[in-house]
Amino acid sequence: MTNSDNTTRIEHRIDTRERAGKNRHSGGVLWFTGLSGAGKSTLAFALEERLFRMGYQVYVLDGDNIRHGLSSDLGFTPVDRTENIRRVGEIAALFADAGFICIAAFISPYRDDRMAARRAAMGNFHEVFIRADLSVCEGRDPKGLYRKARAGLIDNFTAIDDPYEEPEEPSLVVDTSSSTIEESLGILVAYVTSAFTVDAR
Amino acid sequence: MTNSDNTTRIEHRIDTRERAGKNRHSGGVLWFTGLSGAGKSTLAFALEERLFRMGYQVYVLDGDNIRHGLSSDLGFTPVDRTENIRRVGEIAALFADAGFICIAAFISPYRDDRMAARRAAMGNFHEVFIRADLSVCEGRDPKGLYRKARAGLIDNFTAIDDPYEEPEEPSLVVDTSSSTIEESLGILVAYVTSAFTVDAR
Repeated sequence: MTNSDNTTRIEHRIDTRERAGKNRHSGGVLWFTGLSGAGKSTLAFALEERLFRMGYQVYVLDGDNIRHGLSSDLGFTPVDRTENIRRVGEIAALFADAGFICIAAFISPYRDDRMAARRAAMGNFHEVFIRADLSVCEGRDPKGLYRKARAGLIDNFTAIDDPYEEPEEPSLVVDTSSSTIEESLGILVAYVTSAFTVDAR
Repeated sequence: MTNSDNTTRIEHRIDTRERAGKNRHSGGVLWFTGLSGAGKSTLAFALEERLFRMGYQVYVLDGDNIRHGLSSDLGFTPVDRTENIRRVGEIAALFADAGFICIAAFISPYRDDRMAARRAAMGNFHEVFIRADLSVCEGRDPKGLYRKARAGLIDNFTAIDDPYEEPEEPSLVVDTSSSTIEESLGILVAYVTSAFTVDAR
């Protein structure tokens, strides 16, 4: 390698079209937002499995693989939540660029934060509102967090003492108060099939 | 209550073995470390293209797609470099978990930081030392950074006024002082073919 070899930088990456051609679907971000207990993670992992079996390249980002790793330095104050969602938005965009359908499942209560994640994905962003009434979520309380929040043991808990700003124009709404998991999954698969499948070459 | 105490772990239903079976290769991190001008990004993008054409799922993380996005809040002080590499290590680990060969091309001058990236990848980590003598790198100086560092216009520049800690037991060494780009690429492809290919089912 001589000096002159470096004067022209090799930057021709594999572009998204080529990746989509190989995978038979485009990459993009499915952003699940909703209250704690609405069913985001449950649906995200079930959808990941379903799509994988159908041949999609798909990966879930959620509190589990983010909060224990990349964002282990962050708490749950509004500032830290915003920074956490900013990071997730950037990573989801990288996965989309790499050709994946990236399912990001986070409460992500603030509209501005979700807007930032949308901008990071540069057009390949689908906001999915996983909706359930607070009373339903609180009744489920799968992690006992609402009980703790009501007892004052957790601060800044969404919909208790911190706001949840509902999506204004989501790409899709899945209401888990009125739909079963299986029905919700059917809605999601139909959406993905329509939004992400590329034509056979 | 620590930061991550109120997130519970929900397991991915698709495991790494299944992803490897689908892709016909395992996922993992190829971590390129070396001086500025050693050829890390050049080789990373060339390797990405070569592997993609061979059918691999592969993606490059480098300063370009990290520093402008996820780490846009960080500078180049030792503390910020460490935080940058920590984040990259966590993201590379997610890509590996998703079944990708993730090529991370960063100077990553500190041994402890690379060790943290290795831990994040939980065993799927291959340290690749892209080696070239400082005099060779400085002679190439593709971005004019060494000139600026020598003139005192850039602080904390690796190998000028900040240390580069060489890998002690790298998985692979590619010496770009003595090998052409094409030769270096051949060495890298041979390594990947041997380290990442899974048996046909």
